[in-house]
Amino acid sequence: MATATAIPTGLRERLIAVVGRDHVRTDEGALVTFSTDATPLERGRPDAVVFAATAEEVASVLRLANASGIPVVPRGSGTNLSAGTVPHRGGIVLVLTRMNKVKEISDSDLVAVCEPGVRTIELSQAAAAKGLLYPPDPGSQTTATIGGNVAECAGGLRALKYGVTRDYVLGVEAVLPTGEIIRSGGRLVKDVAGYDLRRLLCGSEGTLAVMTELTLRLVPAPEASGYGMAYFPELADAARAVSRVLASGVLPVTLEFLDQVCIGAVEDYAKIGLDTSAGALLIFGQDGNAAVIARDLERMGQACRTEGAISLRIAESPEEASEVLEARRAALPSLSRLEPLTLLEDATVPRSRIAEMVEYIQEVARRYELKIGTFGHAGDGNLHPTAVLDHADEDAVRRARAAFDEIFARALELDGTITGEHGIGIVKLRYLERQLGADHMALLRRIKAAFDPNGILNPGKLGS
Amino acid sequence: MATATAIPTGLRERLIAVVGRDHVRTDEGALVTFSTDATPLERGRPDAVVFAATAEEVASVLRLANASGIPVVPRGSGTNLSAGTVPHRGGIVLVLTRMNKVKEISDSDLVAVCEPGVRTIELSQAAAAKGLLYPPDPGSQTTATIGGNVAECAGGLRALKYGVTRDYVLGVEAVLPTGEIIRSGGRLVKDVAGYDLRRLLCGSEGTLAVMTELTLRLVPAPEASGYGMAYFPELADAARAVSRVLASGVLPVTLEFLDQVCIGAVEDYAKIGLDTSAGALLIFGQDGNAAVIARDLERMGQACRTEGAISLRIAESPEEASEVLEARRAALPSLSRLEPLTLLEDATVPRSRIAEMVEYIQEVARRYELKIGTFGHAGDGNLHPTAVLDHADEDAVRRARAAFDEIFARALELDGTITGEHGIGIVKLRYLERQLGADHMALLRRIKAAFDPNGILNPGKLGS
Repeated sequence: MATATAIPTGLRERLIAVVGRDHVRTDEGALVTFSTDATPLERGRPDAVVFAATAEEVASVLRLANASGIPVVPRGSGTNLSAGTVPHRGGIVLVLTRMNKVKEISDSDLVAVCEPGVRTIELSQAAAAKGLLYPPDPGSQTTATIGGNVAECAGGLRALKYGVTRDYVLGVEAVLPTGEIIRSGGRLVKDVAGYDLRRLLCGSEGTLAVMTELTLRLVPAPEASGYGMAYFPELADAARAVSRVLASGVLPVTLEFLDQVCIGAVEDYAKIGLDTSAGALLIFGQDGNAAVIARDLERMGQACRTEGAISLRIAESPEEASEVLEARRAALPSLSRLEPLTLLEDATVPRSRIAEMVEYIQEVARRYELKIGTFGHAGDGNLHPTAVLDHADEDAVRRARAAFDEIFARALELDGTITGEHGIGIVKLRYLERQLGADHMALLRRIKAAFDPNGILNPGKLGS
Repeated sequence: MATATAIPTGLRERLIAVVGRDHVRTDEGALVTFSTDATPLERGRPDAVVFAATAEEVASVLRLANASGIPVVPRGSGTNLSAGTVPHRGGIVLVLTRMNKVKEISDSDLVAVCEPGVRTIELSQAAAAKGLLYPPDPGSQTTATIGGNVAECAGGLRALKYGVTRDYVLGVEAVLPTGEIIRSGGRLVKDVAGYDLRRLLCGSEGTLAVMTELTLRLVPAPEASGYGMAYFPELADAARAVSRVLASGVLPVTLEFLDQVCIGAVEDYAKIGLDTSAGALLIFGQDGNAAVIARDLERMGQACRTEGAISLRIAESPEEASEVLEARRAALPSLSRLEPLTLLEDATVPRSRIAEMVEYIQEVARRYELKIGTFGHAGDGNLHPTAVLDHADEDAVRRARAAFDEIFARALELDGTITGEHGIGIVKLRYLERQLGADHMALLRRIKAAFDPNGILNPGKLGS
């Protein structure tokens, strides 16, 4: 197993020979910049930061690192929330943001071909310019790269109707830690030649291979979209409304909720006239044909009324729709401003268990004397319990860790998962065996070894 | 590597102790019945046929086989077309059709939980009874089991809009060849805890593990569906119409085509009044809201007219829709009755290359003096070139093999695949390296070894 190590004499020059002097950084500024990602409280100092521009450069860098047993942590913008791109064992941070070309948007084959360093929002805009939609829309999409999204199997707000990143990965070019360049899949929805490595790489968190080209499925852009919102006395009422909506034959594009803590935080911050006395707010939306949208919003509104909604609002214009969505968009920033430290989690449960889970989270928060607001994707049970605290308050940090321990355990009891879309990284590795069991963990390690015999790629994370 | 071997003395009694005397068959009838699947010209005699009823029984059988180094070929109904379930190295055929319970259809979580031996049509009907749809609809769905569908990543006619089997696999319980029972995923659309083994198992053709429970995603059933058809002078015209349809913002549920050979064969057999002078027939359909269906059929009809359709018909009633679909459904049986042997293939290309590919297939058929009709899923480029011949005519069989060699090579040149939905099995293993390359093949073998260190599970196929 590779451990933290300085770059040996000579290796730096060989790296420079591969990518050019400007693209091998060992100065303090670069080492500090690439010591973290978007995960609080996690940090690891790299020995060098290398910016590769082609698959061949990536292959050469990996061959050099593999020969020397030096850790390599591939990354894009580093927006992940599980410390998956923190170089906690030192070595090389391999940055792929120079590989930022959208190579093709094909409206006849309905695919995009792009390099991993393209920002997700750029891909979405390039698709939109041809009347197409790239559905995954993780919260970080304006900053995150598509390579990072695939490596983490990013989710987003549209997953209930459209699925997650994995559902859009048709083809991958990737470099193995030992330097071989392989391709899996291509431009085809149907291709069963070999094991499905493209989907195995999706969500593998940079531990199996470095992806250097992605072919992604696109769909025709919907003609229109519409939104509504409903307040409920209790979260359990909102949860029943979610089940009723889904059992009514509607598959909404958006079905998001905020608990009372979040409603209060958003109103306090954004002053958009939310009803802070309500126990829960449900935001629902549909896209597609205008007549279908109107009918589905009506049906969803009816489901909310049946389950005891206090008040209901259907947005009549794009401006009103923006106001409705603003409540959801503002949830995380509003919570974050309450305290210096924000611990954003993503325990996920079957949607029929949402009420139980959120009530349990609220009980845990009271018991540990923590402020935890929960918002999230009600349609797919993907909850974001978010604790806000002061990291200078060591006891509060300790209490928050203990609280999340209990929250993850409860999610598993409810047939859920410790992570819906944020990944395992470093921060959840210690919970993973609880979910998967020892036999499954041993298999993950054997799969990791099949790709990475010397354990150089993102060591100490998934598959370790 | 395990090779053909008789069941050692004592092992038979141990197998009987696991599953009961009635469920270990070594009589001639059983050995002959389970020597083949739906693949022509492939056969292999098993040493025993074992019918397991639980995951624990599967685990015990695998442990016994693993300890003795005896091949195990798991199967359901054996409808696959690539000899993936032919026991060509002998050993145990492990039949899962006793595991045939639909355990749950949840309309609030939108999932089905079932055993692998449930027939796909039974699952679809159980979902439909609750107003839900299980979208994958492979041609064999009335006979095939859902376990086989997942193992092969079956496709079907709705893949363009709804995707293939992999897109519906949320959770898997599986037994490793060494006997450990693992679970990957569950009831959640979003779950990124660990490598995505459920999708790795999907399409792994029974070479990595034996699946014993499946949790599948369902969607609300569409309210209605509608169909139309258009004839074209040449196949290239129909292919351009396909591209035009997709670029027009319509994502149809059905977009199928028949070439002239198929049109002739269907009319000859079914006498449904097809225009046998046309070069190609395109069948298109949409589901969902009635108004959207009407509009999309109109748009698709317009795209066909623009690309030179000779005639166009929109079905005005369910009966007319059945007539339209009958042309497509009758393609394979109509071709099959022309000669004793039917070689049904599934070379697949990007949809923008369909015309090139089909013209190439027609040229190859002329050159090798073969009758090859091509029909298939135009929307996803999944072609079914189908050669009909007499297996007593050894020279014709040889010519057919040479013709398909060229067809597969051409599919790869056009960025396609040697198999869109039928799998590698035995019959395409010799082509696989041409598509994937030696480095990728070596990786597949390492992954296989990570699951199956003694190579007992379906040896000599994928991962060998």
